[in-house]
Amino acid sequence: MSLKRVTLIHGRLYRDGDPAEALWQIEPDGAVVMDDGVITRVGPSRHVMRQETDLGTVIDVDGRAVIPGLIDCHTHVPFAGWRVDEYEARLRGQSYEAIARKKGGIVRSARQWQEATDAEILAMARRLAQEALLWGTTAMEMKSGYGLSVDQELRALRLIRRLAAELPQHISATGLFFHAVPPETAPDDWIRTVREVLLPAALAEGLVSAVDAFIERTAFSVTAVAQAFEALPASLPIRLHTNQFSRQGGIELAVRLSARAVDHLEYLEPDEIEILARHGIAAVLMPGAAFYTRQPYAPARALLDRGVRVALATDLNPGTSPIGNLPTVMAMAVNAMAMSPDEALAGVTRQAAYVLGIQDTHGSIEPGRRGDLVVLDADTVAMIPYRLGHNPVDRVIVGGRPVTPKTP
Amino acid sequence: MSLKRVTLIHGRLYRDGDPAEALWQIEPDGAVVMDDGVITRVGPSRHVMRQETDLGTVIDVDGRAVIPGLIDCHTHVPFAGWRVDEYEARLRGQSYEAIARKKGGIVRSARQWQEATDAEILAMARRLAQEALLWGTTAMEMKSGYGLSVDQELRALRLIRRLAAELPQHISATGLFFHAVPPETAPDDWIRTVREVLLPAALAEGLVSAVDAFIERTAFSVTAVAQAFEALPASLPIRLHTNQFSRQGGIELAVRLSARAVDHLEYLEPDEIEILARHGIAAVLMPGAAFYTRQPYAPARALLDRGVRVALATDLNPGTSPIGNLPTVMAMAVNAMAMSPDEALAGVTRQAAYVLGIQDTHGSIEPGRRGDLVVLDADTVAMIPYRLGHNPVDRVIVGGRPVTPKTP
Ligand SMILES: [Zn+2]
Ligand SMILES: [Zn+2]
Repeated sequence: MSLKRVTLIHGRLYRDGDPAEALWQIEPDGAVVMDDGVITRVGPSRHVMRQETDLGTVIDVDGRAVIPGLIDCHTHVPFAGWRVDEYEARLRGQSYEAIARKKGGIVRSARQWQEATDAEILAMARRLAQEALLWGTTAMEMKSGYGLSVDQELRALRLIRRLAAELPQHISATGLFFHAVPPETAPDDWIRTVREVLLPAALAEGLVSAVDAFIERTAFSVTAVAQAFEALPASLPIRLHTNQFSRQGGIELAVRLSARAVDHLEYLEPDEIEILARHGIAAVLMPGAAFYTRQPYAPARALLDRGVRVALATDLNPGTSPIGNLPTVMAMAVNAMAMSPDEALAGVTRQAAYVLGIQDTHGSIEPGRRGDLVVLDADTVAMIPYRLGHNPVDRVIVGGRPVTPKTP
Repeated sequence: MSLKRVTLIHGRLYRDGDPAEALWQIEPDGAVVMDDGVITRVGPSRHVMRQETDLGTVIDVDGRAVIPGLIDCHTHVPFAGWRVDEYEARLRGQSYEAIARKKGGIVRSARQWQEATDAEILAMARRLAQEALLWGTTAMEMKSGYGLSVDQELRALRLIRRLAAELPQHISATGLFFHAVPPETAPDDWIRTVREVLLPAALAEGLVSAVDAFIERTAFSVTAVAQAFEALPASLPIRLHTNQFSRQGGIELAVRLSARAVDHLEYLEPDEIEILARHGIAAVLMPGAAFYTRQPYAPARALLDRGVRVALATDLNPGTSPIGNLPTVMAMAVNAMAMSPDEALAGVTRQAAYVLGIQDTHGSIEPGRRGDLVVLDADTVAMIPYRLGHNPVDRVIVGGRPVTPKTP
């Protein structure tokens, strides 16, 4: 439940700027009024404090920077356990392929998933979401994808629905039905099963707000995914994991399917950047995955300079990116991918909101948006990439409710 | 004050291994008894619990990994403020040299230092130490170096002494008397002043447990530092910042001065590694500084393979490494410098203790050492590099006293 009225005062507010001029327009001493969890007024503190007769619960943030709640638009939560032993094997020089041959990787996570009880999976997801919240994540995507069967994929989506109902964050559910080919299954059989059984069931139950597929030599081909996704309702956004380890034509497929976003893009050529720009397809970059898989970072600078929307996300998963918070991702994006602090902030707010289709209700500090705010322990967002490994959050307000201040 | 007796039970203890076999010997279900802040007994939980009639305050850690308290053997705390604006200027392409010409860099920190009150400096240092504690740092070095005058350097060391008296951590004080040439001062004059006034005063007052100098084209030459340090008492360990941006003969100087450790080493040739190995000089590596200055990482693997002691540290400072905790440094060392998780742990425990000369009292879980323990929220230390940006600490015990469990 949200408090009736909460007013934040004396914040250095990061508001949406005039797109032609600056990414952010700073309100140097601003106030934000939230009623029933929704922002109803934003303006200079002195105006708001003079004109509103009742401020409700007042939070004085004393000049600190106030940014929109952070949005993690690509995670693989829920999952059933870490795979730190595989990480250690990779550190000792084993390849992904060798680990996969020993039934590691996604197939291992699928086995852990099947063996775990609902209570165990929910408990782990709650812990991860709570930790993310204390680092500023007020909305996040959750994907299925470790089920690898109709029943287990539906189970995953139903668990996500339960999490969405109980967690303070907004949760967007994505059906990642093409993650790995299920063991002992012909790819064509799985494609047919998804088309004819899983997708209709998930849609009928209202379990997904987007679908996703992993295009890679070791996962699914462009042809397979085209077959499976071409008859989807136009209102259902399509995402693609693509160009992570190689170029398989995923960018062209994204155009053909009118995908909303393509995610990863570690291997991306200039002609593909051009296509994304021309077709208004967003890019979701996840430097954590590049870091852990020792791939090159995606060409963030070239994408931004060509005008492509660039969102940033954790890709939180037990195999290739066990990173669970967005300030760490922002620090990587700025220090290793040459994004500016302002661009990194846009990447985890408005651009991530666009990717999830929640841009009308989330991602900026404006009337009509959900009361999701992050108060930093500093007066500038540049402190986030400057202090890698430091939790920059002084306090979080989610759905109009202040969360207890954190300790480091 | 420490509690009379505290006993940790059911921990997966990381104890010193037989050096010929393994870095760590795991006690799978171990107990640690601490009396008046000192470890008095370590062994299997069932033995300790059966044989000790009074366990005192019991902390049951339920199978979690228990590692020695982390030791940050190279920090520039205390300092008087961040320099995030210079960081932003560098992101926009300005060089260190251009920033230095505008009186930025160390000279700027020196100005901030002079303008800050003791209370302000102490408050910032306390916050940084408290945050480090919650990420596992139970002992840390603090350096002077932003004073750039006799009075201000002595002030820095006296403030460090005050911090040492009040903080729960063990604090080692280092006199970094050659950090930058003071403005409007001839280098030779400063060298003479340090030799004839500052060093004798600091020694007479018992303010330093080591001295340090920055060898670099833009700082001090090998000749200058040799002159200043050659007449020091043999009992006073010498540290050198060297080979960070270029090779100036700092390794040969370290041999000549019988230095305990050389710090940085981003530019290090095989013959220099050979010298360190032959003379038993420790290497202190700080991947945070390499990351923020965009230098190559120091050759950790080559140093380790040649048998050099490798310690890891944050280099916490407002210019080149605003990283304040050791788990983040361990994650960089493992993922970017090819150190193993076990080597990284040794680097922030026993090797760091050696660098600070506190190896008989700190850095391992053995009887006679100070009761400094870190309980992880996992059963293996590999979880630390695996989860960059996650605080892996479940709880900290410092000087035999449990610290309130953290939140993320
Ligand atoms: Zn993914
Ligand atoms: Zn340093």
